[in-house]
Amino acid sequence: MKLFDGGRAPNPRRVRIFMAEKGITLDIVPVDMGALGHRQPEIADRNPLRRLPVLELDDGRVITESVAICRYLEETLAPEPSLFGNDAFARARVEEWNRRLELNFYAAVAAAFRHIHPAMAEWEVPQLPEWGEANKPKALDFLRMLDAHLVDKPFVAGEAFSIADITGLVALDFTKLAKIAVPEELTNVRRWHADLAARESAKA
Amino acid sequence: MKLFDGGRAPNPRRVRIFMAEKGITLDIVPVDMGALGHRQPEIADRNPLRRLPVLELDDGRVITESVAICRYLEETLAPEPSLFGNDAFARARVEEWNRRLELNFYAAVAAAFRHIHPAMAEWEVPQLPEWGEANKPKALDFLRMLDAHLVDKPFVAGEAFSIADITGLVALDFTKLAKIAVPEELTNVRRWHADLAARESAKA
Repeated sequence: MKLFDGGRAPNPRRVRIFMAEKGITLDIVPVDMGALGHRQPEIADRNPLRRLPVLELDDGRVITESVAICRYLEETLAPEPSLFGNDAFARARVEEWNRRLELNFYAAVAAAFRHIHPAMAEWEVPQLPEWGEANKPKALDFLRMLDAHLVDKPFVAGEAFSIADITGLVALDFTKLAKIAVPEELTNVRRWHADLAARESAKA
Repeated sequence: MKLFDGGRAPNPRRVRIFMAEKGITLDIVPVDMGALGHRQPEIADRNPLRRLPVLELDDGRVITESVAICRYLEETLAPEPSLFGNDAFARARVEEWNRRLELNFYAAVAAAFRHIHPAMAEWEVPQLPEWGEANKPKALDFLRMLDAHLVDKPFVAGEAFSIADITGLVALDFTKLAKIAVPEELTNVRRWHADLAARESAKA
């Protein structure tokens, strides 16, 4: 298997953190997204959406989408400990929070970044700063809800670290580029973020 | 278990179609979203995001998010045939297409509806018609890519019907409200949509 990687972008990082947590190493093919390498045939022929990361199996079949890649790597290379949950309820809880974090928080942070940051003007057409600004309060509303949820839990899905925590870490780190400050009073979110950032995998 | 249902809205419908495909029946608690029933304590106390559907287990625990609910119902009530895939590669493929359809198509259709339709002005604040319009070509670009993918497949993830097809059906039906017409020349998408709409489960 080999992984076409996208460097610092959030979705490639999700998979690298997942691999670090599981102790998985793969052949890595670096792709320079700054030079639009993901729009060249090397990637476009493998993923019509021209996004990274992309996993290619030894038989040539391709898997895209970060969560699908993580699920496949876990199942085929390193099932335990599962980062998707160890029983039906835990799996539902992990999926619930991974989706909440992705659809309601990561998406809002990404929209604020892509529609406001000058460097994104050529990537996001039309770039609509008003839409970017509208997403900042959405992200903050979510963080306030999340802070109440985290008051009695070490991790977002409960007692065990999961892929939902990785989604949260990547999205929280992404707030800097989007110029969204996590309010000081959200002490549970800040504690959670600090704990995740201190893990060895966060360097990936 | 009981399911707090949201009527005609797309996410509640996803779960009802899934249940119909699996032959699962549950106690249903209807919630009138038109009367903002999902913002009342009955739902808000169970889901801080105040969205539907919501599954409540007999022990009082709650699962939200349509895909998390479907995964839990499949695993606990009706494992076979799996609508999430029968082996590691199939599960990755289903997740890949469910995500592609949700993040790149359903999201674009929903944005076009919520930011343009007059009935959504009080739901989507600020309502930004320019952002709604910007999503129509995104949805159409995705459908063109999807049409090429479907040329040699009965279902979006391959030979077997899956939850990704349900996401596709619900999103395609949603295009009417968003006033996005599926181009005549996308014959594979139109065939796929017609086949899914003809299934008994589509009435759910």
